Amino acid sequence: MHRYTVTVACADGPGIVHAITGAVLEIDGNITESQQFESPTSGRFLMRLQVRSSASIDALRGALAPVAERFAMETSVDVSDRPCRTLVLASTATHCVSDLLTRMRGGQLNIDVPLVLANHPTAAPLAEFHHVPFEHRPIAGPDDKAAFEQRVLAAVDELDIELVVLARYMQILSPELCEALAGRCINIHHSFLPGFKGANPYRQAYQRGVKLIGATAHFVTSDLDEGPIIEQNVTRVDHTRSVAELTAIGQDTEMRTLRQAVSWFAQSRVLLDGVRTVVFP
Amino acid sequence: MHRYTVTVACADGPGIVHAITGAVLEIDGNITESQQFESPTSGRFLMRLQVRSSASIDALRGALAPVAERFAMETSVDVSDRPCRTLVLASTATHCVSDLLTRMRGGQLNIDVPLVLANHPTAAPLAEFHHVPFEHRPIAGPDDKAAFEQRVLAAVDELDIELVVLARYMQILSPELCEALAGRCINIHHSFLPGFKGANPYRQAYQRGVKLIGATAHFVTSDLDEGPIIEQNVTRVDHTRSVAELTAIGQDTEMRTLRQAVSWFAQSRVLLDGVRTVVFP
Amino acid sequence: MHRYTVTVACADGPGIVHAITGAVLEIDGNITESQQFESPTSGRFLMRLQVRSSASIDALRGALAPVAERFAMETSVDVSDRPCRTLVLASTATHCVSDLLTRMRGGQLNIDVPLVLANHPTAAPLAEFHHVPFEHRPIAGPDDKAAFEQRVLAAVDELDIELVVLARYMQILSPELCEALAGRCINIHHSFLPGFKGANPYRQAYQRGVKLIGATAHFVTSDLDEGPIIEQNVTRVDHTRSVAELTAIGQDTEMRTLRQAVSWFAQSRVLLDGVRTVVFP
Amino acid sequence: MHRYTVTVACADGPGIVHAITGAVLEIDGNITESQQFESPTSGRFLMRLQVRSSASIDALRGALAPVAERFAMETSVDVSDRPCRTLVLASTATHCVSDLLTRMRGGQLNIDVPLVLANHPTAAPLAEFHHVPFEHRPIAGPDDKAAFEQRVLAAVDELDIELVVLARYMQILSPELCEALAGRCINIHHSFLPGFKGANPYRQAYQRGVKLIGATAHFVTSDLDEGPIIEQNVTRVDHTRSVAELTAIGQDTEMRTLRQAVSWFAQSRVLLDGVRTVVFP
Repeated sequence: MHRYTVTVACADGPGIVHAITGAVLEIDGNITESQQFESPTSGRFLMRLQVRSSASIDALRGALAPVAERFAMETSVDVSDRPCRTLVLASTATHCVSDLLTRMRGGQLNIDVPLVLANHPTAAPLAEFHHVPFEHRPIAGPDDKAAFEQRVLAAVDELDIELVVLARYMQILSPELCEALAGRCINIHHSFLPGFKGANPYRQAYQRGVKLIGATAHFVTSDLDEGPIIEQNVTRVDHTRSVAELTAIGQDTEMRTLRQAVSWFAQSRVLLDGVRTVVFP
Repeated sequence: MHRYTVTVACADGPGIVHAITGAVLEIDGNITESQQFESPTSGRFLMRLQVRSSASIDALRGALAPVAERFAMETSVDVSDRPCRTLVLASTATHCVSDLLTRMRGGQLNIDVPLVLANHPTAAPLAEFHHVPFEHRPIAGPDDKAAFEQRVLAAVDELDIELVVLARYMQILSPELCEALAGRCINIHHSFLPGFKGANPYRQAYQRGVKLIGATAHFVTSDLDEGPIIEQNVTRVDHTRSVAELTAIGQDTEMRTLRQAVSWFAQSRVLLDGVRTVVFP
Repeated sequence: MHRYTVTVACADGPGIVHAITGAVLEIDGNITESQQFESPTSGRFLMRLQVRSSASIDALRGALAPVAERFAMETSVDVSDRPCRTLVLASTATHCVSDLLTRMRGGQLNIDVPLVLANHPTAAPLAEFHHVPFEHRPIAGPDDKAAFEQRVLAAVDELDIELVVLARYMQILSPELCEALAGRCINIHHSFLPGFKGANPYRQAYQRGVKLIGATAHFVTSDLDEGPIIEQNVTRVDHTRSVAELTAIGQDTEMRTLRQAVSWFAQSRVLLDGVRTVVFP
Repeated sequence: MHRYTVTVACADGPGIVHAITGAVLEIDGNITESQQFESPTSGRFLMRLQVRSSASIDALRGALAPVAERFAMETSVDVSDRPCRTLVLASTATHCVSDLLTRMRGGQLNIDVPLVLANHPTAAPLAEFHHVPFEHRPIAGPDDKAAFEQRVLAAVDELDIELVVLARYMQILSPELCEALAGRCINIHHSFLPGFKGANPYRQAYQRGVKLIGATAHFVTSDLDEGPIIEQNVTRVDHTRSVAELTAIGQDTEMRTLRQAVSWFAQSRVLLDGVRTVVFP
C-alpha cells in the first residue's frame, strides 16, 4: 500500500469535499487523516488529506485532475514521508544549522539537505560531521551579495530544492529573491514582548526586565520580518538571568521554533491563505 | 441558515466519507468543520461534522439514513449549540457543582440543568442562587441508596436527561445504574502520580512530597474509577504547600477537568471506540 | 504572634544579612520566608523577609533602624496580609476592573479599593455591585484631563493610596503624574510577537496570523508603555480564531496578568532595581 | 574568589540564620543566593546558601563548626560547581544512560561518571563513545545479584561515589543496598494517572486512553517505588498515539525528569525533610 498527502486550495462552495472524496474512492483509496478550513476572511477552502491506496501516484493525480479543474483548485499530491529537499543558508551563528542537521540525522525531521550555503565559514565543521556539502561565499559588498543570491537561485534549480531555510542567515534578501522564493522560504527571528528594534535585542530585553523570551518562524516576504507567521514560542525568564543566559535561552527557543516550522512545512501542513498561514498540525 | 452537528461510527472501509459528504450535498449543506479517526485497534471509523444548511434537520436525517443503513453506522444528528440536558448528582463537597452552574449561567458551558440531586443538603443554597431545582435525599442505608438510584433513573426519563454528571457524588453506583447510564455518565476524581488508595489521598500525597496534583474525568462503568478517560490535568506543587493547600489545588484541578469533559460531551466531541474515548477538541 | 513583611534595598556588601537577621533576633523574631538578589548590573542588594514575632511592629522597626542607617538602606516594614490600598482608574473597557473587584471580594487578591475613578461611566454598575465608590469624570479636552489628574493626586492623598492601577485606562498620563506615582502605578497592555503599532492591534495580529497573544503588566513611567516589566503572559491561538475571539483571548490574558502583578505588589514581592523589577514570587 | 555551597538542617528555632550569616561574615564571605524552609510537619529548618569568599574551604568549615555544634546541625560545605561523582546502573534500555552521558559531555549536567555498571551489555557502545568505563555483570540468579550489589558497594567506596543513579536498572535492590545508599540513590520510573500495575504499563495506558503520560524521579528506599519524590513531569497525549508512540513519549519524559533530579542533586538543591524532599530550584 502507498501513502499519499494531498493539499487543496480553492474558492469555497458546496460539493468540494464530496468531489475530492469521490476521486479518492475511484482509486480505491482510504482517507486516513483529513483536515479542512474555510477562511471567513478570504472565502478560500483549504484542505489536507492523507490517503492510503494500492494505486499509483499518477492514478491519484489523474482522478483528482477533473475535480481540480471543475473547482479551479490548486492541488498538490505527493508521496507521504518523502524527505523535503531543503537548502540551508547560514552566517556566523550555528545553533539553528546544528539543530536542523542533528534532527535530520536522528530521523526526527524529514528533510534532505544537499547543501549548506553560508557567508561565514563557522558552520563548515558541523556540515562535515553530518556529511552535508558546505559552501562558503563571503559577502564583502553588494556584488558579493548579488553573486550569493545568484548561487542560491542556481542551487534551488540544480538541486530540486523545495524549501530554503534562513538558519540565522543575517543578510537581508533582495526583493527579487524574496519574490522568487515566495511561499517556500522560512526565516527565524527572536521576538519579544514588547518588540525591540536595533542592535543587541537581548541586552535591551535584559534592561527592560522582560519575563518572556520569544521566537517567530515565518515565510520570507520583501517586507522584512513581516511575512506570514508559521510558529511562535516563548520561554519564561526572570531577573536572575544574565544577558548571556537570555541569549542562550533565546537561541534554544529559536531552534525549536524553526525546527517545528520546517517539520510542518515538510509534511505539507502549512498552507497559505492570502498573507496568513493555515497550519494543520 | 441552520447549523447541525453530525457524528458517525461504523466499521472502517472505502467510500464512507464520500457517501456522507454526498448526503450533505443533497441538502445543499456546507461542511464547516470535520474531524475523523480510523482506529487501528478496533477497526472503527469515527467522524464528527459541522454542517451549515437552509434545510431542516429532518431533511438532513433523511439524506443520511440510507448511508447509515448501507454502512451499518451509528449516527447522531443534532442542532449545534443546543444545550445538553444534564442531571447533576452531588454529596457534601460543592466545588464542582458550583463551577458547573456558574459556567452554565455565564454562557461558557452549554448545558441545561433541570435538577441537582444530592444525598447531602450542602449544595442547596448554590442551586437556589442559580435558580436550579434541588432535591435532597439522604442515604442512610442500602434501601435509601436503591431509592436514590430509582429517583436518578426516573429523573433521566422525565427530564429528558442526556448526561448525568457525578460532581463529587461520593456513593458507588450499582452495576445496574452504571449499565443503564453507560456512555452518558461522567465522573471526576483526583489522581496522583503515583496513585494513592484509601482515605485522605491529599495527606498521603503531602507525605510523599508529590510534585504534581491531578484529576481525571471519565465515563462511569461498573469497574470503579476505571471507565474510559475523557480528560486529565495536573497542577505543579512543591514542598511549601500544606495539606489544605494541596486539597484546594486538587479541587481547582478537578473543577476545570470536569468542566472541560462536560463541555466536550455537550458538543458531541467525545466518541467511544470500545473502552477508549476519541475526543475531537 | 504577629506576621511582618520586610523589604530591604541597599548597595551590596558583606554583613548585610547578618545585621538584618541580628535585628530580627533582637525582638525574638523568626524568619519564615527569605528571598534575596544581588544585582550584577547595579550592585544593589535586594531582600524580602517574612518574620513571625510576638513583638510589636514598632519594636521591629526600632531594631532595624540602626541597621538601615549603617548600610544606607531603604527598608519597608509592614504587617503581612494587610490589604493594599488601591485606586483603580478605568475608561470604557471593564474586563480588568471586573476581575480585580471580583478577586478582591472572593479573597484571592489582597487589596482594598476605596474608589474607582473613570473617564467613562461603563464600570459604574460593576463598582456598585461590589459596593465600591465610583466617580465618573469625562475628559473632553486638556482642561478636563488636568482636572482628572488633580483628582487622582487628591484621591491618593486623601485615601492613603499605596497603588494606582490603570485597568485599561486609555489616557496617556502626564509626565508630572508619572513622576508623582513612580514605582506605585501599574499599567496593563496587550503585547504581541512581533509588536503592532497603531489602532486595532488585534486586527493586525489576525492579519499576520500570530500564534501567540500576550499581555504585559509594568510600572508606569513617562516613557509610554516602556516602564519596568512586572509580569507577562501569552496564550496560544491558531488560524481558526476570529478577530473577536483574539480580542476576547487577549482580554483574558490581560486580566490574569494584571491580577498577578497587583497581587505580587500587594505582598511587597515587587522591588525595583533601577529600571528593572525584581520579583520574589 | 571561591564559590561555596552550604546546606544546613536542624531543629527550627530563633537565631539560626543570624548565626550562620555571622560565620560567613567571619571569613569575609558574601551570600549570593539563599533559600530556606521551615517545615511545619517536622519542625526542621532547612537552608541552602551560595557563598563567595577569598577564604579557603577549611576556613569556612571552621567558622561554621561552632554554629553547627550549637544548633545540632547537619551541614555540608562544598566548592560550588564541583562535578558530582556519579555511578550509573543500567539494564537493557539505554535512553536514560544516553541522555545523562550526552548532557554531562555537553556541559549541561554537572556530574562525573567514572563507571556505568549494567546487567546487560546494550549500553556498552554508548559508554565507549562517551569515554566512560563500562562493566557488564549478567544477573542470572540470586548469587549473581548479590555479587552485583557487592560490586556496587565496592565501586561506591573505591570511586568516591556521591550519587548512584538507577537509569532504568530493572532489578529490585535488596533492603541492605537501599539502606546503604539511603539519600544518595535516585530512581526513575514511569507514572500514570491512574497508576497501572504489572507488565507493559504503556499498553494498559493505551487501552484506558490516558491523556497524560508521566514520570517520577525519587530517592530509593526499601519500600519499592515509594521513596521521597524529587521531580515529576507529564506529557499530554491523545487517542491518535499508538502504544509505540506512548512508549517513546514516556521514555522522553523519563529522561528529562531523571536529568532534572540528578542536576538538582548535583547542585545540593535536594534536601531531605524526613520522608519528603525539599527542592530549592
